[in-house]
Amino acid sequence: MKTAKFLLIAGMLLAVLSCGQQTTLPLTTPIPARPAGATDVLGLRCDPIDTVRVGVIGLGMRGSDVPKRFVHIPGTRITALCDILEENVASSAKVVTDAGFPEPACFSGSEDAWKQLCEREDVDLVYICTDWVHHTPMALYAMEHGKHAAIEVPAATTLEECWALVNTSERTRKHCMMLENCVYDFFELTALQMAREGLFGEIIHVEGAYNHNLDPFWGRYWNNWRLAFNQQHRGDVYPTHGLGPICQVLDIHRSDRMESLVAYDTTPINGPKHAAAAGMEGDFANGDLTCTLIRTEKGKTILVEHDVMTPRPYSRMYQLVGTDGYAAKYPVQQLCFREEGAENVDYQNLGKEIKLTGEALEPILAQHRSPILTEELETLAKEVGGHGGMDFIMDYRLVYCLRNGLPLDMDVYDLAEWCCISELSAISCEHGGAPVAVPDFTRGSWKK
Amino acid sequence: MKTAKFLLIAGMLLAVLSCGQQTTLPLTTPIPARPAGATDVLGLRCDPIDTVRVGVIGLGMRGSDVPKRFVHIPGTRITALCDILEENVASSAKVVTDAGFPEPACFSGSEDAWKQLCEREDVDLVYICTDWVHHTPMALYAMEHGKHAAIEVPAATTLEECWALVNTSERTRKHCMMLENCVYDFFELTALQMAREGLFGEIIHVEGAYNHNLDPFWGRYWNNWRLAFNQQHRGDVYPTHGLGPICQVLDIHRSDRMESLVAYDTTPINGPKHAAAAGMEGDFANGDLTCTLIRTEKGKTILVEHDVMTPRPYSRMYQLVGTDGYAAKYPVQQLCFREEGAENVDYQNLGKEIKLTGEALEPILAQHRSPILTEELETLAKEVGGHGGMDFIMDYRLVYCLRNGLPLDMDVYDLAEWCCISELSAISCEHGGAPVAVPDFTRGSWKK
Repeated sequence: MKTAKFLLIAGMLLAVLSCGQQTTLPLTTPIPARPAGATDVLGLRCDPIDTVRVGVIGLGMRGSDVPKRFVHIPGTRITALCDILEENVASSAKVVTDAGFPEPACFSGSEDAWKQLCEREDVDLVYICTDWVHHTPMALYAMEHGKHAAIEVPAATTLEECWALVNTSERTRKHCMMLENCVYDFFELTALQMAREGLFGEIIHVEGAYNHNLDPFWGRYWNNWRLAFNQQHRGDVYPTHGLGPICQVLDIHRSDRMESLVAYDTTPINGPKHAAAAGMEGDFANGDLTCTLIRTEKGKTILVEHDVMTPRPYSRMYQLVGTDGYAAKYPVQQLCFREEGAENVDYQNLGKEIKLTGEALEPILAQHRSPILTEELETLAKEVGGHGGMDFIMDYRLVYCLRNGLPLDMDVYDLAEWCCISELSAISCEHGGAPVAVPDFTRGSWKK
Repeated sequence: MKTAKFLLIAGMLLAVLSCGQQTTLPLTTPIPARPAGATDVLGLRCDPIDTVRVGVIGLGMRGSDVPKRFVHIPGTRITALCDILEENVASSAKVVTDAGFPEPACFSGSEDAWKQLCEREDVDLVYICTDWVHHTPMALYAMEHGKHAAIEVPAATTLEECWALVNTSERTRKHCMMLENCVYDFFELTALQMAREGLFGEIIHVEGAYNHNLDPFWGRYWNNWRLAFNQQHRGDVYPTHGLGPICQVLDIHRSDRMESLVAYDTTPINGPKHAAAAGMEGDFANGDLTCTLIRTEKGKTILVEHDVMTPRPYSRMYQLVGTDGYAAKYPVQQLCFREEGAENVDYQNLGKEIKLTGEALEPILAQHRSPILTEELETLAKEVGGHGGMDFIMDYRLVYCLRNGLPLDMDVYDLAEWCCISELSAISCEHGGAPVAVPDFTRGSWKK
């Protein structure tokens, strides 16, 4: 190895950090002690709820679809609605009553009207679809008042918020689930099932992204909050759509865990243009594109990208690389497997594998349907819609698990792991790509 | 910013490295002084050569095609051939004489027969297609004997070799070009031209890869040298096919330069299986997949992947992300541009851009042909072939520049920049992803 001399120098640089005291990268962030008397909520089961009574906070863009979906889910009732704008509440209430349900309690007009919704006796689940910075405070308040919390992505925007949600769920024994709809998309559900059946061998590398040109959308958020958030924060501020499905494939905090990450971003160019056009003042923190690489304890790697600033085809990447097979969703769905007996190939023939795409995928996808995706559910989901049906499947599953006293598909540790990448990637970017440790939000419990 | 407290801790860790002495990441590697009296070879022009006399070393797998291409290039003559196996030399000599050219001088049978080829008076250009570890010693010897050197990828496998090639080219004033054929593929040439015309705005991020399942190929290399190299070396050992075309787009060491990189690799699983099957002993160093992120001085980012161990569709990725447009080659060619006036879109419509793929690409690609790709050359390239014509275009351009006394399309600094990523990524992997500085091989000259 010719690298030996450089490795020695580098090793010295990293090992000696101050007079005689040795430490090493990665950089670390504080891990708070578990609240006295609390235990982990891995596999948390709560008492079955016959009819799940739902209170929804935030009925603007994304939230306005929630009542439209819930009126189709058996065993639920929307009992309370809240939005800062009265007209949003009124139109959602009409969706509920038009479907033949009783008029829900309505709250609006004040910055903390939502607290009254959380305090009601007739709410089992608080469903939160507001701007990002209100997600965690509302979920904490809901759990403190004995409700389960379901929170739009990202449920938390800082490490402090991640830990607060974990601690509160552990202490109150209430479910705290992030509404990561992308894990319920058909290809992702099926590929996860194929991975679990071992079709790809051992998965060694996965990729996910939120690459979505938001040019036409920025102005449509209440008070321009989304652009303002990007202006104020460096790092991958929206990692969960990319990370959720691929972390499930890697079985994170079940049989492996994310150990550390490195991140680089690009100099902001388009971001500041949008801010200037919106009359915002000050520097723009978020790079137009951020790349984060994560390594797990078992030595697998995860690539996550974030780009909402450039004109490009929508992509969540979703790529699985296994020792025996490969799956990718964007820009075209592909599966690939080893072709046995492919020894005598022309070396100018650059591939000798079984590659499936387009219609050729259909039989194999049909053969490995996710067990949660019953035909009845799929038919209903396609009727009701919502991002191609995945939103409906997500809500249906959440209700199904609550009604049957089952652990949810995603727990508060998934939430924390997928959300913490925002602040951790910012720390790495601000330190020239230095590796940063990913905290173990289960505080050791996942290994038991 | 909620990150403030963690940044402070991290800043302290990085700033204080030993008693009172301050330094920072990235890790650095030594930059040797320029040889006394030498100057840079940026834009190097040498005396025009009327008929370029070529000596080829290495006539096995890849090298066996070289004479087949050169007999079609005007203004060239193959005057010498060398391979360790006599039969390889004989069959290549037959290609030359069958095409009506005089019998070249033939060398074989000994481990250093190639030196005699380099020493001949009737050779202007030594063209090297051997195993990787012989590339640099042969090129150094050729330049020392007054020849230009053209070297298959990777031309250098260590930083020491990169610097040796740079220093020797600067001292001898001989061209030293890596035969990076992928920069001459049609889509890459055209996208480069489009980038130079500003169609993508400012390019902020690029991606390249060598993702190619080598299952059927390992056993075909002389003495299994390629698998042995992977066994002995960590990091992205084959980065140049991915990096070459995208570094040209970023205009590296012309108007920007690579500043630092971070890399993670996966635990070796398939590599050790191949080694065991081939009867090799000892640990296997190379991860099945390696990801490297590079950041440039101007704040652009580069992603490079290396995976030759898993069954997956062949891909060099080749993705350009610009402030005003996007191009990607794998798995399907795509171009994307901003659609003006796309304000009123349904937010569930996940993209509102002009996306071109398949046949829709043809008119725009035809409109932005590279100026080096004359119609005559393209027709001839398609006839002669070689990785779809790009090998022929590369050789034709090399000869054209030598015959006209022009700077080559790729210089020795390109070679060093694209090759150094191997050892630098290994250093990063071995230090938990710590950032490593990319040396400026022009030693400051590119900024003049």
